[in-house]
Amino acid sequence: MSSLAGRFRELWDEIAPVGRDADSGGYLRYALTAPELRLREWFRAQADLRGMPVSEDGNGNLFAWWGDPGGTPPTGTRDSDGPTGGGAVLTGSHFDSVPHGGAYDGPLGIVSAFLAVDELRASGAVPVRPVVVAAFVEEEGARFGVPCLGSRLLTGEIDVDRAAGLRDAAGVSFAEALGDRPAGADPALLGRFAAFVELHVEQGRVLVDADAPVAVASAIWPHGRWRFELRGEGNHAGTTRMADRRDPMLTYAFTVLAANKEARLRDAHATVGRVAVEPNATNAVPSKVTGWLDARAAEAETLHGLVEAVQAKAAERARRDGTELTVTQESATPLVAFDRELADRLAGLLAAPVLPTGAGHDAGVLAAHLPTAMLFVRNPTGVSHSPAESATDADCAAGVVALARVLEELACH
Amino acid sequence: MSSLAGRFRELWDEIAPVGRDADSGGYLRYALTAPELRLREWFRAQADLRGMPVSEDGNGNLFAWWGDPGGTPPTGTRDSDGPTGGGAVLTGSHFDSVPHGGAYDGPLGIVSAFLAVDELRASGAVPVRPVVVAAFVEEEGARFGVPCLGSRLLTGEIDVDRAAGLRDAAGVSFAEALGDRPAGADPALLGRFAAFVELHVEQGRVLVDADAPVAVASAIWPHGRWRFELRGEGNHAGTTRMADRRDPMLTYAFTVLAANKEARLRDAHATVGRVAVEPNATNAVPSKVTGWLDARAAEAETLHGLVEAVQAKAAERARRDGTELTVTQESATPLVAFDRELADRLAGLLAAPVLPTGAGHDAGVLAAHLPTAMLFVRNPTGVSHSPAESATDADCAAGVVALARVLEELACH
Repeated sequence: MSSLAGRFRELWDEIAPVGRDADSGGYLRYALTAPELRLREWFRAQADLRGMPVSEDGNGNLFAWWGDPGGTPPTGTRDSDGPTGGGAVLTGSHFDSVPHGGAYDGPLGIVSAFLAVDELRASGAVPVRPVVVAAFVEEEGARFGVPCLGSRLLTGEIDVDRAAGLRDAAGVSFAEALGDRPAGADPALLGRFAAFVELHVEQGRVLVDADAPVAVASAIWPHGRWRFELRGEGNHAGTTRMADRRDPMLTYAFTVLAANKEARLRDAHATVGRVAVEPNATNAVPSKVTGWLDARAAEAETLHGLVEAVQAKAAERARRDGTELTVTQESATPLVAFDRELADRLAGLLAAPVLPTGAGHDAGVLAAHLPTAMLFVRNPTGVSHSPAESATDADCAAGVVALARVLEELACH
Repeated sequence: MSSLAGRFRELWDEIAPVGRDADSGGYLRYALTAPELRLREWFRAQADLRGMPVSEDGNGNLFAWWGDPGGTPPTGTRDSDGPTGGGAVLTGSHFDSVPHGGAYDGPLGIVSAFLAVDELRASGAVPVRPVVVAAFVEEEGARFGVPCLGSRLLTGEIDVDRAAGLRDAAGVSFAEALGDRPAGADPALLGRFAAFVELHVEQGRVLVDADAPVAVASAIWPHGRWRFELRGEGNHAGTTRMADRRDPMLTYAFTVLAANKEARLRDAHATVGRVAVEPNATNAVPSKVTGWLDARAAEAETLHGLVEAVQAKAAERARRDGTELTVTQESATPLVAFDRELADRLAGLLAAPVLPTGAGHDAGVLAAHLPTAMLFVRNPTGVSHSPAESATDADCAAGVVALARVLEELACH
């Protein structure tokens, strides 16, 4: 029998070409478009190979069951070794990508889940609770604009009508793409799961620096998006004296640098990665510049202080530039603390470091409803949402071994 | 008989609604599109009313003649009072606008020219040389991308095939819009003109500060466009530590502020009014940011020093940010010094200030071929290429009087 790293590579190569853009080397796997639908067919085929029946929740999420999906859920209570409720142990992730995203973000958690089932079976382990591999829909929000749409629907954290009416850039609604109105919250299905463990490629370089292949997540940082609209006076670039200008590009530039500085001072993250300029002409002083601030920090208080400081500096500069500043908070996500007991238990089991992350995940949504944990696999580049995202086959194999141990711990005792 | 300001307003109101966007209040008068074609019809009607035959040069430029367009050009030599060659005196401007541009930039020079002819006639002046009112095509370059396209074609300063093949955003070529391949350089027609005087709304606030309604131009500042391409590493905004980033938005922001500072230090103009970001997503550290620097100064040496300084500061910051900087000069226009003797003569005649401008004009193209001058009319807002551009009827009347005096000086002695 080939090595686990070899078996990982074999399975990985089956999906590697799907949705890959030849020019960028990145992936265009938007939810419910042809490449993602092919991956969902591949999911069903893999489940079938393993004798795992697949159920759907009517929201676009798929579940492959090692165990009986239709059976009465176990009614056991929490004991010292097993998860709350004694129900099924859920693992998995998502297939969809950001535009020109990497190969690992999402699919690694699904491929690793099927291989972990293989490992458990090869070891002779016998689950006393079902093990379920999930593929959640529209985790990135790249097609319909709302990240974690599948897990939000399942848990009732988004209104069904709102979700149904979300439209992609071509005007197709989520309900149309799904072929039906989404089913929405399913407490009965949720009640069958006792825990969720999502394995994900690391989106940073902490594991590179720690020289470890796998980590356990402690929390998802609170984060949000703020729109900074700066209005000035459109004018001719050639003839308008510098002293007569009210140029919002200057205020924008100052705000970008201030956000960077304030984030570094606080060990937080601040990014201005998106800008819109009117009229965006080489020979025109802009009339309006809009920048979007993405800010994240370990503590809500730090995040608040960071955004306040950036806003104050932008306002001060706007006064100097003669421009007008309006700041609008577009979204806010509070701290998600994963189940502390579960994280500590898994970290002990795996002798793995515990670290927080700045990124949202389906695990962040499910954490409010189930004991939830995440495993991260080392990414040598530290780069994510980019074709440069990567993981070695050896580290991916280490991820599978870790996930198999976790499933054995949670489902076989 | 009504006042000149009243007659100006009457004529102005005839064209004021043409191509005006109801939302912005600005104009969408792109060359050879319906609104501009209507203005060209209006031009022919105005010429007709005044018994001025209209000739075309096959490049899209129109000429209304007070005098015989087909006649043998006068062969007189330069004398102490008249312009070189003793030929016709050309005036006029353009009808086309930038997107959502102001009402005055261009059309003021044409309306004022017809009214100056009326003034001359009412005064009983008898030209000994033809007076010609011109409407040049595509001065702004807003439709086909090359400013002063009509005057460049007439003077042979652009290749005819290149001009013919220029395409607008919808893919329509200039030749298609014109209905024929442009005729290109016409030395015989050019040879008939002894001087060109373009009246234009001021695109700044110098006349406001000088408390004068009209000025004479001394020169068009040397200017150019430089593309600053900044490459970094695309990454996840939530998970990438600040220290691990190579964020080109930071280098861009620093470059914008450096350009502003360096221009102020030199009494020059620098603008970054256009930016392109990849992928331009709120939750992504950009992989690439491109900014366009528009820089202008009174002297070529100052301009060169300005751009060098901005480039050096950008390069230094790029080293700190771990980004890569490439600077490409996209265009360069050397100093256009208008005919010094003519400018001094007109300034004396009008008791008007003499000032340089940072903007290109058809007069800048023709200045290499004919003694050329420009008159500027005060703009209370100082704003240009914007709906806020303006001029009072009284100042426009003062502009007509000044232009009539200039035409009398150049054509009637």
